[in-house]
Amino acid sequence: MQSYLPTERTTLVRGAQRACYDREVVHAILDEAVYCHVSCSTADHGFCTPMVHAREGEALLLHGSSANRTLRALRDGAPACVNVSLLDGLVLGRSAFRTSVNYRSVTIFGAAEEIGERGEKLAALRAIIEAVVPGRWRDVRPPDERELAMSLVLRIPLREVSAKVRSGPPGDLAPDYDLPCWAGVIPVSRRFGAPQADPRLPADRKTPRYATEYAR
Amino acid sequence: MQSYLPTERTTLVRGAQRACYDREVVHAILDEAVYCHVSCSTADHGFCTPMVHAREGEALLLHGSSANRTLRALRDGAPACVNVSLLDGLVLGRSAFRTSVNYRSVTIFGAAEEIGERGEKLAALRAIIEAVVPGRWRDVRPPDERELAMSLVLRIPLREVSAKVRSGPPGDLAPDYDLPCWAGVIPVSRRFGAPQADPRLPADRKTPRYATEYAR
Repeated sequence: MQSYLPTERTTLVRGAQRACYDREVVHAILDEAVYCHVSCSTADHGFCTPMVHAREGEALLLHGSSANRTLRALRDGAPACVNVSLLDGLVLGRSAFRTSVNYRSVTIFGAAEEIGERGEKLAALRAIIEAVVPGRWRDVRPPDERELAMSLVLRIPLREVSAKVRSGPPGDLAPDYDLPCWAGVIPVSRRFGAPQADPRLPADRKTPRYATEYAR
Repeated sequence: MQSYLPTERTTLVRGAQRACYDREVVHAILDEAVYCHVSCSTADHGFCTPMVHAREGEALLLHGSSANRTLRALRDGAPACVNVSLLDGLVLGRSAFRTSVNYRSVTIFGAAEEIGERGEKLAALRAIIEAVVPGRWRDVRPPDERELAMSLVLRIPLREVSAKVRSGPPGDLAPDYDLPCWAGVIPVSRRFGAPQADPRLPADRKTPRYATEYAR
């Protein structure tokens, strides 16, 4: 299927014209973002936690310390809501009400499954590192048994998913176009700088291409 | 007081050395970020929603459509957890386990209060627009009665608040410093581009300084 099926929870109440269920759009947003926000509810309160993620096919991978409260709650069955947002611009409309932002955002509802089997867990950790810095995995020392035991890795299947996207100039009310103020968009983007070598690195250590490639 | 008092929920379980309760640090993170993620729990599920925010003194201001499910749930008493995160770098440690990110993050637990009184509501909407684009408010058409009625504005007092910050080079395990791989940080920052005028704007309309100032 080309699209995710909307459910009650992923049917947008506000700004329905910005809704999108296309898999390619969703995948591109998840892949461009380095981190997501994970909310899960425990008995007394909800938590909202930023986490690095990776997408692998039709699943979102999360990892962290096995002491992490959010990950433990998800592993123990708390339903997850994950949001990934990329800010693309500040939209200066002619009225306060039509002042907005351009963004691409994905929301995922689902239940997490623990990835516990050693080989699958290593593959998931590899996928996460490769998602953040493609090419990095082959250069790092892989996790040892102790580190694997200290890590909790979860998979959330991409089933109940929606994207919400706003782009383009302000959408002002017809009479407001006659107002004398400036209107438009201030673009916002993410910038990766030149790699900063660890001060403890020998001076002749070559910077790998996957690190310099990021600079832009 | 210079610092927020840690509570059970804001006492970091993981990475406690990265915890910070200093008001100035918290305020700076909230002020630099354009948007936050708001989680709130309803009967059946948690939601995690990105929203533009502003800080006003010791409160976080949120706004949106009065039909917005998250804002309505918060107004009706659902406890809120808000997280604001700024990504500062990709940390390439020598092991998979010590691969990390540099970031500044704030988490706020609290209950929201609706700002319903007309004057206060206008002031809060002004504060939010001024937080995103300082100087903009005087140029836009202020909300009319219909638009005010369509907006829900909430205030969450900054009482139960913590920051979590990671900066600097990788923190590798002692034996890993002898590994032959490169290690260091790829800096990440937010970039504001040159303002893009609305195509419907007259060609001679001057771009205000508050829009060009953003380009960097």
